[in-house]
Amino acid sequence: MERFKQQIEFLVEIDKLKHVFRKTKLFNGSRYENDAEHAWHLALMAMVLSEYANEKVDVIKVIKMVLIHDIVEIDAGDVIVYDQQNRALAQAKERAAAQRIFGLLPADQKEEFIALWREFEERETPEAKFAAAIDRLEPILQNHLTDYHAWRTHDVSYAMLLDNNRHVQEGSEVIWQAVQQIFVAAKEKGAVRTN
Amino acid sequence: MERFKQQIEFLVEIDKLKHVFRKTKLFNGSRYENDAEHAWHLALMAMVLSEYANEKVDVIKVIKMVLIHDIVEIDAGDVIVYDQQNRALAQAKERAAAQRIFGLLPADQKEEFIALWREFEERETPEAKFAAAIDRLEPILQNHLTDYHAWRTHDVSYAMLLDNNRHVQEGSEVIWQAVQQIFVAAKEKGAVRTN
Repeated sequence: MERFKQQIEFLVEIDKLKHVFRKTKLFNGSRYENDAEHAWHLALMAMVLSEYANEKVDVIKVIKMVLIHDIVEIDAGDVIVYDQQNRALAQAKERAAAQRIFGLLPADQKEEFIALWREFEERETPEAKFAAAIDRLEPILQNHLTDYHAWRTHDVSYAMLLDNNRHVQEGSEVIWQAVQQIFVAAKEKGAVRTN
Repeated sequence: MERFKQQIEFLVEIDKLKHVFRKTKLFNGSRYENDAEHAWHLALMAMVLSEYANEKVDVIKVIKMVLIHDIVEIDAGDVIVYDQQNRALAQAKERAAAQRIFGLLPADQKEEFIALWREFEERETPEAKFAAAIDRLEPILQNHLTDYHAWRTHDVSYAMLLDNNRHVQEGSEVIWQAVQQIFVAAKEKGAVRTN
């Protein structure tokens, strides 16, 4: 039962994702969200919103991608998308983390999980583009519902919102329209810088 | 965009699952687990362990089931499986919760989600039986790794462990063998009653 033992070891290791906290708060503002909760919420978004993907997507692939996309942050930590400098530094750590953590699995599953994670990161397939769109929708909704907590804390500008989220449009025009309305409202309320 | 609005309303409502706490602690024992984290972990277990299902299962169906299976607890709360009396009371609340919460979705998706939830509850299909097996595996591993926190707190006996988890065998013989070893170890350490 060496194979089963390896699989259980992986499943025990990834519990640590529940201790990796993000920069955004839960919708009621009471505390920060962790990566496991975030991944669960994205999977539900994939189940509910996939009809809005620009291209027809294999929903199960989107679900699997979002379920595993942040596991590398167990080693690399969470870096807000608006912090471009640290995002670049984090990428090397994330590659090493993928090898270490998915490497706990038997070889066939390691390969499957790394391929899913890479596809998500490369954002080239319809599934990866749509997964990236919902990965942005959730924190944007969280900002919208918590008086823009993360955007205010990290001194985000309106231009940064547009620049760093523009790829949402590649995954879903409908979601892009919706999040742009949230950006405009944040600007009008003075919650984000305009210079 | 009435449809999109309904879907977002549902996705906002289910954030509350992150505030429903279970009776078991995270593997490092630092705090209780919430239902959203639990659902995420089960989805990963489905991805990794489905080869051990007694009958061939449609993995995506298992994943979808476990992702949504506890959403009803937003209204009904979490009741430990060893508390048979309150489990029965909770079931009526859960049925009403399914209508209310999945009822936020457009009719076609409401139907899909309620059907998935019912299939999980009825535990008759290979997918539902396997989903039920991993739904037990996670808290059993949590007890194993946290000095049997929930079993000690709720005065669980060895006979209750066997009786209340016996259906794991219907989903997966391999997982049933593994959890029985954990039960025996708990008995030998005096962590569960034997009378």
